[in-house]
Amino acid sequence: MTEKPIQLGLAGLGTVGSGVYETLCRNHSLLEARSKIPFRIKRIAVRNLEKPRETAVPQELLTDDWQDLVNDPEIDIVIELIGGTRQAYELVTLALRAGKPVVTGNKALLAEYGAEIFKLSAEMGTPIYFEASAGGGIPIIQSLQNSLICNHINSIVGIINGTSNYILSAMGEHGADYADALVQAQKLGFAEEDPSLDVNGWDAAHKALILAMLAYGTTISPDKIYVSGIENITSRDFEFARKLGYTIKLLVVIRYHEGQEDALELRVQPCFVHDWHILASVNGVFNAISVNGDIVGETLFYGRGAGKNPTASAVISDVITAMRESRYPEYHTGFNPYAKSCGIMHINDTVTPYYVRFQVADQPGVIAEIARILATFGIGISATSSAPSHIAEDGAQWNDLVFILHSCPWGQLQKALEEIARISCVAAEPRVLRIEHLLPQS
Amino acid sequence: MTEKPIQLGLAGLGTVGSGVYETLCRNHSLLEARSKIPFRIKRIAVRNLEKPRETAVPQELLTDDWQDLVNDPEIDIVIELIGGTRQAYELVTLALRAGKPVVTGNKALLAEYGAEIFKLSAEMGTPIYFEASAGGGIPIIQSLQNSLICNHINSIVGIINGTSNYILSAMGEHGADYADALVQAQKLGFAEEDPSLDVNGWDAAHKALILAMLAYGTTISPDKIYVSGIENITSRDFEFARKLGYTIKLLVVIRYHEGQEDALELRVQPCFVHDWHILASVNGVFNAISVNGDIVGETLFYGRGAGKNPTASAVISDVITAMRESRYPEYHTGFNPYAKSCGIMHINDTVTPYYVRFQVADQPGVIAEIARILATFGIGISATSSAPSHIAEDGAQWNDLVFILHSCPWGQLQKALEEIARISCVAAEPRVLRIEHLLPQS
Repeated sequence: MTEKPIQLGLAGLGTVGSGVYETLCRNHSLLEARSKIPFRIKRIAVRNLEKPRETAVPQELLTDDWQDLVNDPEIDIVIELIGGTRQAYELVTLALRAGKPVVTGNKALLAEYGAEIFKLSAEMGTPIYFEASAGGGIPIIQSLQNSLICNHINSIVGIINGTSNYILSAMGEHGADYADALVQAQKLGFAEEDPSLDVNGWDAAHKALILAMLAYGTTISPDKIYVSGIENITSRDFEFARKLGYTIKLLVVIRYHEGQEDALELRVQPCFVHDWHILASVNGVFNAISVNGDIVGETLFYGRGAGKNPTASAVISDVITAMRESRYPEYHTGFNPYAKSCGIMHINDTVTPYYVRFQVADQPGVIAEIARILATFGIGISATSSAPSHIAEDGAQWNDLVFILHSCPWGQLQKALEEIARISCVAAEPRVLRIEHLLPQS
Repeated sequence: MTEKPIQLGLAGLGTVGSGVYETLCRNHSLLEARSKIPFRIKRIAVRNLEKPRETAVPQELLTDDWQDLVNDPEIDIVIELIGGTRQAYELVTLALRAGKPVVTGNKALLAEYGAEIFKLSAEMGTPIYFEASAGGGIPIIQSLQNSLICNHINSIVGIINGTSNYILSAMGEHGADYADALVQAQKLGFAEEDPSLDVNGWDAAHKALILAMLAYGTTISPDKIYVSGIENITSRDFEFARKLGYTIKLLVVIRYHEGQEDALELRVQPCFVHDWHILASVNGVFNAISVNGDIVGETLFYGRGAGKNPTASAVISDVITAMRESRYPEYHTGFNPYAKSCGIMHINDTVTPYYVRFQVADQPGVIAEIARILATFGIGISATSSAPSHIAEDGAQWNDLVFILHSCPWGQLQKALEEIARISCVAAEPRVLRIEHLLPQS
């Protein structure tokens, strides 16, 4: 062991911050034995010094000014866990400028300001670590940076929002309605009072941006990613999915298309997943990220994607790496540059098969008419299925009419759907879900 | 980039060796860009210089004397992929003594001589890397060493032999017989001509020893691990498993029992796995390793556990780490020491529920008699099921009689089974499979 302990400054003592503090105390001797580096927590910045806390922290460690962490010359490493983007941005950039390595789990910060922050980190030669920003306790960032280093990444497909996966699992397993499943998730603490960011796909999108930036060594603006959420999925969709051998998951899809100018497909959407695929078995608040590399083939990383302790585990693995690398700053590799073109593919050009559910009046000729229009647009049908849906106020019978469509570009499908919407006996908004093409495992 | 390239010596150009050579060539620029370290392959030791090879290798790189790699002062890192234990042991120990970091994927070597080799590595201050020795392309070693560093490991439960998993998957999915599934695996190249080490559990046991040594920072002699294989599993067992909501997997189980003197449970056995558990979805030649840590909770790592390229991916991630750390030898942490007692629990003391299938003559009173004996030994029954099995040569009817038993120590069950074997109408050898207790995922 070296003699002088490395001194840590921790900003934020919320859920994750207190998990990090407790674990650094509880497993302190284990960590020093394993890392062979002595360390101590020098200072903790909190918003309110007087606030009663579940976690007992010596009062002399606390400060209510996060600038103290940057200004204290004895603090070697800054751990940013205050959340939000405004103060976190100031703290992270000031720390990097001061030559203090930063550990953060702030996905919103990196999705929004990643390009700038990574550039600053490289210019200053001061590393930033962010394992906890995507996938909670799942070591996906270190795996992409180190373990899979010899691979061109063909694709990353993942379930990386625990709240929405809990809701979809409850709908799939128990036939729950969306609204009931959401209330249940809120009761159990798996969904916030305002669950928007989780269910509208944007939390997953932030993480997807970080993964894509890392895998392809490029910076990507958030407006380049196509995002849709799970708010409109119904138990009807799950019934049809089950009947057809699928379940429904909110998937992040990052896929590289060799030889295309805008090669990088990048989207967050609820998708049909074959029930034999391992992603279909990822239930509840668990996350899973499947990475396909040109050398390693198919891999998958699974674990708790959020929560106090799993996230603390990720933060602390970064802290240990930061401590090691603070002795050898050259060791740090930072972003992995990528030799190939990484323009983002327009959503209209992305190609998969689809599940489309129309609500149609129970009249002869509807299937024929829809099939005719699809054929006009060159879209093949691989299966259809229908079931009575509901009786309208005027007594008319409405049916659910489901089509499984062969692969075609998203844009082409949209055009066909516009045309179909003009048919008088078709209700305006069909439900469209992609059928994600995932490799069989054998 | 530093100016002088790091020079690699590769021993072995078999399946994995040629995969490593091809990938180092194919993705050379990607690797240099990502690692920021220039490197080249200086020398490759093969058994036979004249042998025709699928992989084109410049003749001047080849030598048929592996000692050349150790003796060449320009070679910085030695990659051992010759397999076997005798020559590999010599090569690895000589290289470590010569101060050359070693990368190996040789699980038999490490299971047998790990204690000695790790000790030598520590004494010499020369690191040895072995990501490819357990789980093929799955980055389980780096995850245990780095990503999960703040965790006391509660358990590691895994499917880490692709051949046996292919056979069990075929039996589970298509109702195949063991013998047919084995032949099929051999035809597809998933099983060797002599599949013994794969199907008798010892390949998995070697990997389990490495994982256990790493997770608990201790050395373990191979005779401490209880190993049984899949050779006796029949399609009947799969029928009962399915009926009861399970499948059968060859599991490696490493579990720490807090507070017990011999705290470490360590075994390889075919087990019943609940069909809702993610391990039940791991099919074909894929491997998966579930790690439960006190901070991170449940995680799982999934991928191809063997094969040319997946294993090459793991070897090369080690090569890059070795290159980085060769500049900063202090950086290497080696084995993670563990503060707690790690005596190995005797198999008789390990506790799970069980599936037991007897073959019994179709006579009244058999169930009552077996149940009475189980009760004498304090073993509870949670379910029974029976089905006609076959007609003996003398025309007598034999039945399969299945008991699902509550948790009890293995040794206690064995005593009860000895007693039961004395009942005249019970065929001697019942099939006993553990029902592995795995946490629900929610």
